[in-house]
Amino acid sequence: MTDLIAVVHGPNLNMLGKREIGIYGGKTLDDVNSEVKVEADKLGVSIECFQSNSEGELVTFIHKCRGRVKGVLLNAGAYTHYSIALRDAIAAAQVSVIEVHISNVFKRESFRHISVIAPVCIGQICGFGSQGYILALRALLEEKLDPWLI
Amino acid sequence: MTDLIAVVHGPNLNMLGKREIGIYGGKTLDDVNSEVKVEADKLGVSIECFQSNSEGELVTFIHKCRGRVKGVLLNAGAYTHYSIALRDAIAAAQVSVIEVHISNVFKRESFRHISVIAPVCIGQICGFGSQGYILALRALLEEKLDPWLI
Amino acid sequence: MTDLIAVVHGPNLNMLGKREIGIYGGKTLDDVNSEVKVEADKLGVSIECFQSNSEGELVTFIHKCRGRVKGVLLNAGAYTHYSIALRDAIAAAQVSVIEVHISNVFKRESFRHISVIAPVCIGQICGFGSQGYILALRALLEEKLDPWLI
Amino acid sequence: MTDLIAVVHGPNLNMLGKREIGIYGGKTLDDVNSEVKVEADKLGVSIECFQSNSEGELVTFIHKCRGRVKGVLLNAGAYTHYSIALRDAIAAAQVSVIEVHISNVFKRESFRHISVIAPVCIGQICGFGSQGYILALRALLEEKLDPWLI
Amino acid sequence: MTDLIAVVHGPNLNMLGKREIGIYGGKTLDDVNSEVKVEADKLGVSIECFQSNSEGELVTFIHKCRGRVKGVLLNAGAYTHYSIALRDAIAAAQVSVIEVHISNVFKRESFRHISVIAPVCIGQICGFGSQGYILALRALLEEKLDPWLI
Amino acid sequence: MTDLIAVVHGPNLNMLGKREIGIYGGKTLDDVNSEVKVEADKLGVSIECFQSNSEGELVTFIHKCRGRVKGVLLNAGAYTHYSIALRDAIAAAQVSVIEVHISNVFKRESFRHISVIAPVCIGQICGFGSQGYILALRALLEEKLDPWLI
Amino acid sequence: MTDLIAVVHGPNLNMLGKREIGIYGGKTLDDVNSEVKVEADKLGVSIECFQSNSEGELVTFIHKCRGRVKGVLLNAGAYTHYSIALRDAIAAAQVSVIEVHISNVFKRESFRHISVIAPVCIGQICGFGSQGYILALRALLEEKLDPWLI
Amino acid sequence: MTDLIAVVHGPNLNMLGKREIGIYGGKTLDDVNSEVKVEADKLGVSIECFQSNSEGELVTFIHKCRGRVKGVLLNAGAYTHYSIALRDAIAAAQVSVIEVHISNVFKRESFRHISVIAPVCIGQICGFGSQGYILALRALLEEKLDPWLI
Amino acid sequence: MTDLIAVVHGPNLNMLGKREIGIYGGKTLDDVNSEVKVEADKLGVSIECFQSNSEGELVTFIHKCRGRVKGVLLNAGAYTHYSIALRDAIAAAQVSVIEVHISNVFKRESFRHISVIAPVCIGQICGFGSQGYILALRALLEEKLDPWLI
Amino acid sequence: MTDLIAVVHGPNLNMLGKREIGIYGGKTLDDVNSEVKVEADKLGVSIECFQSNSEGELVTFIHKCRGRVKGVLLNAGAYTHYSIALRDAIAAAQVSVIEVHISNVFKRESFRHISVIAPVCIGQICGFGSQGYILALRALLEEKLDPWLI
Amino acid sequence: MTDLIAVVHGPNLNMLGKREIGIYGGKTLDDVNSEVKVEADKLGVSIECFQSNSEGELVTFIHKCRGRVKGVLLNAGAYTHYSIALRDAIAAAQVSVIEVHISNVFKRESFRHISVIAPVCIGQICGFGSQGYILALRALLEEKLDPWLI
Amino acid sequence: MTDLIAVVHGPNLNMLGKREIGIYGGKTLDDVNSEVKVEADKLGVSIECFQSNSEGELVTFIHKCRGRVKGVLLNAGAYTHYSIALRDAIAAAQVSVIEVHISNVFKRESFRHISVIAPVCIGQICGFGSQGYILALRALLEEKLDPWLI
Repeated sequence: MTDLIAVVHGPNLNMLGKREIGIYGGKTLDDVNSEVKVEADKLGVSIECFQSNSEGELVTFIHKCRGRVKGVLLNAGAYTHYSIALRDAIAAAQVSVIEVHISNVFKRESFRHISVIAPVCIGQICGFGSQGYILALRALLEEKLDPWLI
Repeated sequence: MTDLIAVVHGPNLNMLGKREIGIYGGKTLDDVNSEVKVEADKLGVSIECFQSNSEGELVTFIHKCRGRVKGVLLNAGAYTHYSIALRDAIAAAQVSVIEVHISNVFKRESFRHISVIAPVCIGQICGFGSQGYILALRALLEEKLDPWLI
Repeated sequence: MTDLIAVVHGPNLNMLGKREIGIYGGKTLDDVNSEVKVEADKLGVSIECFQSNSEGELVTFIHKCRGRVKGVLLNAGAYTHYSIALRDAIAAAQVSVIEVHISNVFKRESFRHISVIAPVCIGQICGFGSQGYILALRALLEEKLDPWLI
Repeated sequence: MTDLIAVVHGPNLNMLGKREIGIYGGKTLDDVNSEVKVEADKLGVSIECFQSNSEGELVTFIHKCRGRVKGVLLNAGAYTHYSIALRDAIAAAQVSVIEVHISNVFKRESFRHISVIAPVCIGQICGFGSQGYILALRALLEEKLDPWLI
Repeated sequence: MTDLIAVVHGPNLNMLGKREIGIYGGKTLDDVNSEVKVEADKLGVSIECFQSNSEGELVTFIHKCRGRVKGVLLNAGAYTHYSIALRDAIAAAQVSVIEVHISNVFKRESFRHISVIAPVCIGQICGFGSQGYILALRALLEEKLDPWLI
Repeated sequence: MTDLIAVVHGPNLNMLGKREIGIYGGKTLDDVNSEVKVEADKLGVSIECFQSNSEGELVTFIHKCRGRVKGVLLNAGAYTHYSIALRDAIAAAQVSVIEVHISNVFKRESFRHISVIAPVCIGQICGFGSQGYILALRALLEEKLDPWLI
Repeated sequence: MTDLIAVVHGPNLNMLGKREIGIYGGKTLDDVNSEVKVEADKLGVSIECFQSNSEGELVTFIHKCRGRVKGVLLNAGAYTHYSIALRDAIAAAQVSVIEVHISNVFKRESFRHISVIAPVCIGQICGFGSQGYILALRALLEEKLDPWLI
Repeated sequence: MTDLIAVVHGPNLNMLGKREIGIYGGKTLDDVNSEVKVEADKLGVSIECFQSNSEGELVTFIHKCRGRVKGVLLNAGAYTHYSIALRDAIAAAQVSVIEVHISNVFKRESFRHISVIAPVCIGQICGFGSQGYILALRALLEEKLDPWLI
Repeated sequence: MTDLIAVVHGPNLNMLGKREIGIYGGKTLDDVNSEVKVEADKLGVSIECFQSNSEGELVTFIHKCRGRVKGVLLNAGAYTHYSIALRDAIAAAQVSVIEVHISNVFKRESFRHISVIAPVCIGQICGFGSQGYILALRALLEEKLDPWLI
Repeated sequence: MTDLIAVVHGPNLNMLGKREIGIYGGKTLDDVNSEVKVEADKLGVSIECFQSNSEGELVTFIHKCRGRVKGVLLNAGAYTHYSIALRDAIAAAQVSVIEVHISNVFKRESFRHISVIAPVCIGQICGFGSQGYILALRALLEEKLDPWLI
Repeated sequence: MTDLIAVVHGPNLNMLGKREIGIYGGKTLDDVNSEVKVEADKLGVSIECFQSNSEGELVTFIHKCRGRVKGVLLNAGAYTHYSIALRDAIAAAQVSVIEVHISNVFKRESFRHISVIAPVCIGQICGFGSQGYILALRALLEEKLDPWLI
Repeated sequence: MTDLIAVVHGPNLNMLGKREIGIYGGKTLDDVNSEVKVEADKLGVSIECFQSNSEGELVTFIHKCRGRVKGVLLNAGAYTHYSIALRDAIAAAQVSVIEVHISNVFKRESFRHISVIAPVCIGQICGFGSQGYILALRALLEEKLDPWLI
């Protein structure tokens, strides 16, 4: 049986590709999930995608990942910046999480430079659009991360 | 002729693998550069590696990348946190830079959470050890980044 | 067919008129909505009222306003002060939103002086009790706002 | 005899319509005052308009409103952000003041997000251009504000 | 008929006893609730337990306590630190709330030292593990609190 | 021989019950100590009460608790907010301390929200008047605190 | 010829005694000035009183005190808190100024705790109502201030 | 029997006149107290002088003033800037206190601009050397302060 | 007809040369204006000098420069640090302004390091005494500023 | 022999004219230096130009100016904002330095508003493009600065 | 007669060697004092040791050093961080004080990085355990400090 | 073979004794190094002196100390306050470093009170002029530091 990877999208990501096409492009969230699936198939893992605008549902979903998935690709959207509940959920679930952001948050408003979840994630990938999820998937599946990462 | 990618390491990265092996692992900077080279060969690009402890030399090297390299993988080390000179160099050189950090800087002292260069880079990859350079290389060489990235 | 205006109430506004009558008066949320409806009828528009204590449901409702309503009268209650998710929802939904507060928030605790949604709304009306919704409705329906508003 | 409403404009508002027409539109301060007058006539009240670039004159004018006007529509311009003298004048004059801003100040520089006069006004209306004065006039003249406003 | 006491647990408390047993011990949330029930039986009151990861559901539950329960033992988890919505819900529900924390939050990250709900609660008990709920229950049921508490 | 518990009161607590009876009630510090003694008798422990307005004497008393008392109930009064000396004394004395406050300090001036001693105490109980000492005594004497408290 | 003392009142002090008599009492500014005159007569000096709501006029008046008056009793009202222009005027005029406040500004809003003029005055007297001017007058006329004041 | 006024001096004031005569002058604390006594005799009141370097002793002395003295002239020295214990003592003692400083603290280091006791005193007199005590004495004994002081 | 340049001096600059000659030198404002006039004559332009201590008059004067002068040399004195009204006046008048300071403000109190008008001026010249006006005049009249200035 | 003036350019200024010609114009650093030379020739002084991206080399160059040059025109680029080493070098070299910036730094990011070297320079000229160097040269060579500059 | 050096220890230093031996080692305060005495004997000076937990006693002791001791070795313990009273005592006593800390305070909590007494001491020695006192003694007794120390 | 101690001087220390002799004295850096050498000879160790104005060279020199020197006496000059690169170099080199400052940095500008390298050094000695190096040398060579230093 193949390993399972959760791909978790936070608030407003359901609107991807449906708004401001000139700026955000035409890829919908389904498109992004499909791209990740194609890559997952190549790499021999399954993915389970989840999106919610609700902080509580995201917390609950992270809990359910515990002991069931090999890792989580998490784009927490705006909750990145203030959801200590989500941070605690990651710590409680004891699952490997990689933080993904589609845009380079450091080019945007200063309140987006703060991530309250970053300290409980393995690492962060931001600024590469939907490709960020692919990179994160690869990062998660590398046979063996350097054992000396802090 | 193949595209050239610069792999730039800032202060103290020359000490990789030579210090605190229990913590940082045994890979030296040469090991890391070799790994990147193996990947670059696979992807059909050349790499040019550079390390300096000097802020000025790093600024000058970034200048020299202009019009000569397809992109830069930059781990600016401690200069990440205060070298506005390096930030301005990236802006002046008009070259695509991806910011790489070996450790998850967001798990460390709060002064390491600030990156003065992030707003002028394409994106950031941190927390994946030497694999971060490989991921950044792949990110840089993707045929076409989503055109809608902010 | 008449234009539709959404009237959106955030957390705790369902308690209007049910608590501390000496202070907050006896109007319930239904009373307020009815008042807005009377005005809407006069002005020839329909209204759709929505209240939720859930940040996620508010985000989702705002998304659903897109392309369907002419504008939103939004009293985001406490979420006004920290829900970046709601802010992003407004930006994503590309709908005209007027921020309404029943009390003059600037007379209250300093944390109520911050509105994270104000920068993505057309304007703000606060301090006029339930009348604020009526004023906001009128503002939204003016034939033509001055074209030079920033 | 009809009630009197003061319409008070602070510094630089005398330049309305005379500058940057592409951005601010062509309405002059006289145009705005005329619009308010038309509405006042409909509502059966008189208005008295006043503009000054001088903080001291504005303070003095507010004093003179005491016991003479039913209310004040006040766009204090830049003094909004620092004139504690004006704040104290409003408190001393014991007159109902509604704060009006033509632009949505929350979309602009952060120093414009601070209003030192807001805590001594009834409420605030901002972002609706010259229409804001009309809305404020209506708000002031409503027979009876909800008695439970804080 | 016996008095009813609500025992309310916020986000991630459903994970108690299921994670990091070496650190957090083996008591589950059911164990904690049972302990409180045993004490409640001794003291002649009923308890109603509620847990949710959703801020909105917690707000709604607090509303429903109004006029129905004698008091609330509330461990708001991470929402303690930023949910102004919950704070407003407590104020609106006009019910006596005691804030409980399992760990001594003041020994942990500085963001956990802030409680936005503390000013609307009767008091706070933290650092005594599940015993904190028992202490809070006793505190709530004391025949008569000193009448002179601020 | 019974266990000894120290009950330590900081500055101004000698004035309890002697001032502003309408606000603070008529219980004197002796009354409070007597109540704690009654409870201690029930629970089979002795208590030793100490009050001082002097930071130095409080530091010295805490030192003397070392190896002699089972625990300390400490209401440090105003020293709570700035006495690093007292904090260090607690750490040096290696004795279990529970922080008690008569009023809910979080409802008062913001400088009272800071406790420099909280991080070296087991836990905090505040807002329950003199009952807080009784609750703290019980907490201290529980056979076995959950072993998993942070 | 007798020495001249200037008594200078800033913005809103012209409203003394005309507003909120229950709170501020019935003394007008004329009453206050008369009281100071009575005391001045006793002490054998003349006084010249000045009030303005205009920052610029206050600056100009202070300039005119130079070389003409023995000292200034200055209640700068709200300008106390931000008028660097007034501060510079005092420094430029090289005249002895005593800062007077009718109320105890330290009991009021925190922005009133800041005095930008205090560092260029001899000293400050606040909280004693109109008596403060009398005290300041006496202070100014003492034959010889201790020569060792910083 | 005459009224009693306490004259209270905080830390380091015992060194007055014994140090840096060129700067601080040659008056000792006894000289200052004698000057106050001469004035008190004139005004028909007794004085009781107290100096301590100990925060606790100052707190205790303030307590003892309660119901025994008509008022306190308090120069709390360095404790002015951080002794919340002293602040609470003044509030508890319910005695009228006037804050006196020999130097103009606003001309000195910024940490001397903060007074934690000012909000619980009647008023503040600073910058007039030993004369400040005389002025404070007069202020305290005025038959009737304006009844409208905040 | 020659171009006109306005030379505008803010509060307290009328005191130049009249105060503290040892420190500020003996040049009066007239001397400074004369020096600028001599230079203007050489350069073939006229100048119009204006000084006011009133913020409002300065605002009004700047308005009047619009469309009438080629540029403004502005030493706003203390208003530099807080007059947002003046800032807005410059923006509204659409005239080229060069900010001049006689002293090197960066060597003085930290509140003088802030210029609220700098972002709407062409540039700043400070620290060169009255020569600063001459330099500013020359700067303004250079045939052609580099077209690439930000 | 003619006086020597050093013209010192910091990091990234070697890129002038080589980047973003649309924005920064086509003048190279050599062009700028040539312009200064032309002016120097007119004024009868020699210039020595130096550019480095290295903080240490700039420090060393400033040291070498001591006793050898009449003054320094210094555009420290990004080092302006954080190089305390450069600040100390200027103080140690005891040479007159004028700070020059090509752009108006106050229109740009807030971190560019800070100059750590300004307090040890004579003055600052910013916002006039390459002309700023010319103005600075003239300022430096004026026969006699007003002797009363702070 | 030999010179006298005071060795002054602040709060909690009486607990040295009595607590947490694994961490703090087994040396008691007497041991430390004895070590200093041995060194003092070698260097031909006497020492007088003093320890107190009371801020007031430390202030008084510092006063008594005036004119009597050649210098003071002062480890003010926790008072280092907030005792402005102690700071003022050092300034008043006009005695040379060297600040000593056993641990490297800069490795500990951030509130320990602040020393309010450092600006009135000659210098600081920290991080060398009890040896720090020895080093400080030697520093104090050097025939002649460089005369050029700031 | 004798142990080697590195004596490392940062930016501007090459200017010692060459500037402002009245203030800094006439000792050059060579004089200081010679003094340290004399002491080293007495203590039976060798020293190697190094000075650089370049942050990068200092980083590199620290690296080279690894495994080669017994310890480092480091006066990092201005880099003390911001060179995180130097801090990381010390951590990487795993060599014992003592931080030395010639002046008492705590008496100077507040930006000099921050040391970013202090947390990775053994301890700090400041304020004793060139004697500081001698004290640091002795500290480093003590047979055995107390084993209990934090």
